[in-house]
Amino acid sequence: MKMMKGANRWRRQVPFILLTNGGGVTEEAKAHELSRELGVKIMPNQVVLSHSPMQSLVDKYRHRHVLVIGGAERRCAEVAQHYGFEKVTIPDDIVAWNPSAWPFTSVRDYARPEYNYSQEPIDAMMVLHDSRDWARDLQIMTDVLQSRHRVVGRADWGQPAQIVPVYFSNPDFQWSNEYPTPRFAQGAFRLTLELLHRQLTGGNELKYRLFGKPHTATYEFALTTLDDQARVLDPAHTGFRRFYAVGDNPESDIMGANNHGWHSIAVRTGIFQHPDQVAHRAELQPKDIVEDVEEAVNLILEKELAM
Amino acid sequence: MKMMKGANRWRRQVPFILLTNGGGVTEEAKAHELSRELGVKIMPNQVVLSHSPMQSLVDKYRHRHVLVIGGAERRCAEVAQHYGFEKVTIPDDIVAWNPSAWPFTSVRDYARPEYNYSQEPIDAMMVLHDSRDWARDLQIMTDVLQSRHRVVGRADWGQPAQIVPVYFSNPDFQWSNEYPTPRFAQGAFRLTLELLHRQLTGGNELKYRLFGKPHTATYEFALTTLDDQARVLDPAHTGFRRFYAVGDNPESDIMGANNHGWHSIAVRTGIFQHPDQVAHRAELQPKDIVEDVEEAVNLILEKELAM
Repeated sequence: MKMMKGANRWRRQVPFILLTNGGGVTEEAKAHELSRELGVKIMPNQVVLSHSPMQSLVDKYRHRHVLVIGGAERRCAEVAQHYGFEKVTIPDDIVAWNPSAWPFTSVRDYARPEYNYSQEPIDAMMVLHDSRDWARDLQIMTDVLQSRHRVVGRADWGQPAQIVPVYFSNPDFQWSNEYPTPRFAQGAFRLTLELLHRQLTGGNELKYRLFGKPHTATYEFALTTLDDQARVLDPAHTGFRRFYAVGDNPESDIMGANNHGWHSIAVRTGIFQHPDQVAHRAELQPKDIVEDVEEAVNLILEKELAM
Repeated sequence: MKMMKGANRWRRQVPFILLTNGGGVTEEAKAHELSRELGVKIMPNQVVLSHSPMQSLVDKYRHRHVLVIGGAERRCAEVAQHYGFEKVTIPDDIVAWNPSAWPFTSVRDYARPEYNYSQEPIDAMMVLHDSRDWARDLQIMTDVLQSRHRVVGRADWGQPAQIVPVYFSNPDFQWSNEYPTPRFAQGAFRLTLELLHRQLTGGNELKYRLFGKPHTATYEFALTTLDDQARVLDPAHTGFRRFYAVGDNPESDIMGANNHGWHSIAVRTGIFQHPDQVAHRAELQPKDIVEDVEEAVNLILEKELAM
């Protein structure tokens, strides 16, 4: 939720984005889904998914071999290809090439084993969504990390230093669904990869880069997206006066907003329920607390009208 | 491989067992499979699987509710029931009861959701074989550990101390299949459960009991099994003079043998390839090194003939 410069403009339209640590589909597919669910037309450029800022990696890896982890079937590979990555492999492709790579996983009909993976170095590993098979994906990722040739399925392990970059799209440790208690999210998978990497290397720390809230790459990407929207509404747009961020997750929504100078508003519809939950850490404390998103919007309008 | 007391006896028959950290099936099924593969009749009481010594837990948990983890379909539940556990649940049952418990796993046709699991306390958790869905199983196990009522699917988390015992059948961190590099085994799953338990409890260490090589419960069970065999061959049997143990895994086969006074012989058909691998730890060093099991048997016969 953003307020444009110029007192009257927000009466007509306020640039806003839906900024989520979810993903696993294209921005187009998510906008379509949200439009249907909310009964409000949401454009693809109003949706920022956890992996949306990873488009900044396309320049570097467009023609290189990337291993994409997470999501249902081939969907994250399709997201990556849609972004512009041209040489994408998923773990299912490797298991289809050699089922003994992870014998507890069956070969899927959506697998496309296009290479001899023991000869085809992997240039980067990108976790775009929750892994659907932790053990298999952890095994294949550590195989690549341990390989002197950045491959899998070759007895060339013992790589002393990490030579393959690893990117994660979502730092959240847990997420909430309709179940009464939170479920493990991509952050739990990442901690597990770090643990197993230490075990296999005698204590080396995994190096990686995080996208998604509360990280800066995501807020920079969000700002660019909002500026683009604002320039359509007002070609003279040069910047925003205030940013409001509404969210339920203290570790991502509230901390991200606080750290980037956005006015944080916590809703009680998810993880955040009570200020006691965040009493011990200043960076997790919201500027305002409301029940739900509708209340948050009304609060923002009140605040802006009073200025 | 055991040598009986009495110089002539081993010429006729030497009590031996096949002692593996594998499992996931009954001893009967494994004996049948091995008889077919080896072309030698192997009796069920000559097979000691990783979970065979867990039969000692039946006295305690016969009528109680145990969550059994690992293995294909319902097979480990069937093993547990075969041992005498009467009230067995597997994670698939819980997901069938409430699919939002782990929404990335589909409900299987072999699930038997017999209870309202939010009302049915779990008395023990037993990992009988490799988990086929780490994230789901880690989620459900930590749900139970965090629950004040030892249940799942109730918002009663925050259990300060561990009240549900956890048993593992196999401590191995890795295992070897036909793939060129070792694959993660149950020990890697256990380390991950320990990590996530620490994360969720602010640093508490998971308490658990380990079965399988190199642990004493397994060697005690093996000894009982060998004594039973020997008494069939010789009713006057009172004990063994020497124990030989042949295996490829330094951490389980060799260390287990060394720690329990068995003569350890390493074969080069699996994990062990070269003494350099174990140069740094005395307990992992085999007494003898041979190429394969046949050479090991010949070596043992030579040694015994020379005595």
